[in-house]
Amino acid sequence: MEHSQFTFNLLKEQVSARAGVFSTPHGFIETPVFAPVGTQATVKAVTPAQLEETGATLVLANTYHLYLRPGADLVAAHGGLHQFMQWHKPMLTDSGGFQVFSLSDTRRVDEDGVTFKSHIDGSTHRFTPESSIGIQEKLGADIIMAFDECAVPDDLAYNRAAMARTHAWLERCVKAKKRPDQALFGIVQGGVFPDLRRESARFVASFDLPGIAIGGLSVGETKEQMHAMLEVIDPLLPRDKPRYLMGVGSPEDLINGILRGVDIFDCVLPTRLARHQAAFTLNGRVNLMNSGFSRDLRPIEETCQCYTCRTFTRAYLRHLIVAKEMLAATLISIHNIQFLVDLMKQARQAILDSTFPQFAAAFLEAYTAQQRKENA
Amino acid sequence: MEHSQFTFNLLKEQVSARAGVFSTPHGFIETPVFAPVGTQATVKAVTPAQLEETGATLVLANTYHLYLRPGADLVAAHGGLHQFMQWHKPMLTDSGGFQVFSLSDTRRVDEDGVTFKSHIDGSTHRFTPESSIGIQEKLGADIIMAFDECAVPDDLAYNRAAMARTHAWLERCVKAKKRPDQALFGIVQGGVFPDLRRESARFVASFDLPGIAIGGLSVGETKEQMHAMLEVIDPLLPRDKPRYLMGVGSPEDLINGILRGVDIFDCVLPTRLARHQAAFTLNGRVNLMNSGFSRDLRPIEETCQCYTCRTFTRAYLRHLIVAKEMLAATLISIHNIQFLVDLMKQARQAILDSTFPQFAAAFLEAYTAQQRKENA
Repeated sequence: MEHSQFTFNLLKEQVSARAGVFSTPHGFIETPVFAPVGTQATVKAVTPAQLEETGATLVLANTYHLYLRPGADLVAAHGGLHQFMQWHKPMLTDSGGFQVFSLSDTRRVDEDGVTFKSHIDGSTHRFTPESSIGIQEKLGADIIMAFDECAVPDDLAYNRAAMARTHAWLERCVKAKKRPDQALFGIVQGGVFPDLRRESARFVASFDLPGIAIGGLSVGETKEQMHAMLEVIDPLLPRDKPRYLMGVGSPEDLINGILRGVDIFDCVLPTRLARHQAAFTLNGRVNLMNSGFSRDLRPIEETCQCYTCRTFTRAYLRHLIVAKEMLAATLISIHNIQFLVDLMKQARQAILDSTFPQFAAAFLEAYTAQQRKENA
Repeated sequence: MEHSQFTFNLLKEQVSARAGVFSTPHGFIETPVFAPVGTQATVKAVTPAQLEETGATLVLANTYHLYLRPGADLVAAHGGLHQFMQWHKPMLTDSGGFQVFSLSDTRRVDEDGVTFKSHIDGSTHRFTPESSIGIQEKLGADIIMAFDECAVPDDLAYNRAAMARTHAWLERCVKAKKRPDQALFGIVQGGVFPDLRRESARFVASFDLPGIAIGGLSVGETKEQMHAMLEVIDPLLPRDKPRYLMGVGSPEDLINGILRGVDIFDCVLPTRLARHQAAFTLNGRVNLMNSGFSRDLRPIEETCQCYTCRTFTRAYLRHLIVAKEMLAATLISIHNIQFLVDLMKQARQAILDSTFPQFAAAFLEAYTAQQRKENA
């Protein structure tokens, strides 16, 4: 009963879409859920109090970044990430694997682990399945990830080798893990290759882990390929475990993921877009720098209940952007995060009401209409 | 009874220090008070909700900046600054005069007004007493300032001429002002010259205005000169009107100002310092970038009740700074503003308790000890 503190109650399924509740030592996560990303132990530009007000429950932090700076020992000296960054709801850390492969200029993979150079100062470091778990145990998130290798999506030989290593490393992660108050998720890899994805889904599902992550998507493949991979593995994954699609976070990708059986998502997109003045609306993404907003006295999105939309006009936000005021990034981040949190709440309610396909179709129709018009 | 919406109740005097209440259409201001500065209709890096939580009551915005960008008409279209930036407590705008003389590369002063070039795009603009009042009426702050000329502090001839213009312009501002829900303050000038300061104090006091500002200090003169000028004009200013020392805001300057009869202060210092990682403590200013804080699990100031000190360690704040996270500026700004707001509350209570000289001496002793040690 190692993961007795973690239970997943599947409340409702409609076709592949699922509504559930995942319990953790820091509270319940109602799924489907979107997790904002606090790469360096802060969701950029917002305080934990502002983040809580968006309705966010689960927050992700990056093991690679925190290992390099400020170091896992300082976080542990605070009592873990929850205390360090003062987020008292559930947290998730990744394994560091993805960043080793995407951020580090030089790296050497062997069967035992990866040697890499820091993107900050070029110093040499090494991650193994055991050290990744050790660091994540110091960080102390509720949900931790097995150390994996994320290959470029369309290289078959590379994906076959990376998947084999990911599987071998998963066995070592399971053995290395000690803390009973953390849930270890294994990661399905396999690029855009259905056979590899099936093999990986079956292998990861064979461990009785409290959840399963889907890696190696949203890394350069097409939307059609991503959807196809989700459809291939959906029937092979245990129904009674939450599924976490890593690094996915546009409104349309969330809806399309839910349609294909995903419960948990994370992405830097809402906060990164905010720092580039882009905001989500029900009619698609808008850039608030646009001069068309200079005298617009409406909120970003009339139906949104976030602090920014309850409080400020588009004209004021555009003024902040033009005047290069930091507050613009904060206010747009708050909106973009709450937009995704609310979208997940609405999707969940639609699943519970057995109206999700209609909800998804109506949302996608409105959200992408402008884009389709521009492409036509 | 033009300014019947504005009353100043002087509750207590101890030597020159004063505790009072100034009432405005947007609520009471308990004095002495420190006003954070929202130059471009935002106190940099903090939301109005965060600002309100610091206990701030009065907020200043800059007419020069808002006139140039986004323009007074857009602010007026929102219903004024309170609605535009969503600060619903008292607000104050300056006249634009100071920025015309400090920010604009080229300017031409004549008896009627000032022609200047925008520091943003070099375009040519003109301010007169009448246009400054007109802009401030569109902005709609509770307290507005007469258009004045701020000379370099130690040029006698320049100060004599600038003072004469400032006085002539005050008469025109009084005539131009139309809105009964705004309080116009005249400004005492005169550089570091006691005779000019006396003449200016008597002239401005001769108008029955709801408050009096003291300009042309904290612009390059010595602390001794600033203190001497405050002492020269203190007995000449009406006791039943609030006195506002413009642009002053270090903890020690606030205490020294109160000791010399000042009620209202404003300064960008707490937020500007925060963006340079410097924080106020009772034992002086500290720079949180300092490696000595890297494992310091205490808050910035143990006795401070601000959100930042209630929530985060110095080690976490230093991590945010090193990692170049925007949240650092937000959290240190919140602390620095509340530090000054709380200092003013404590000073006020000490005046009411007739213990202000002792309070001031003890505060200055502790706050400057480190600095004195370093200078010794």
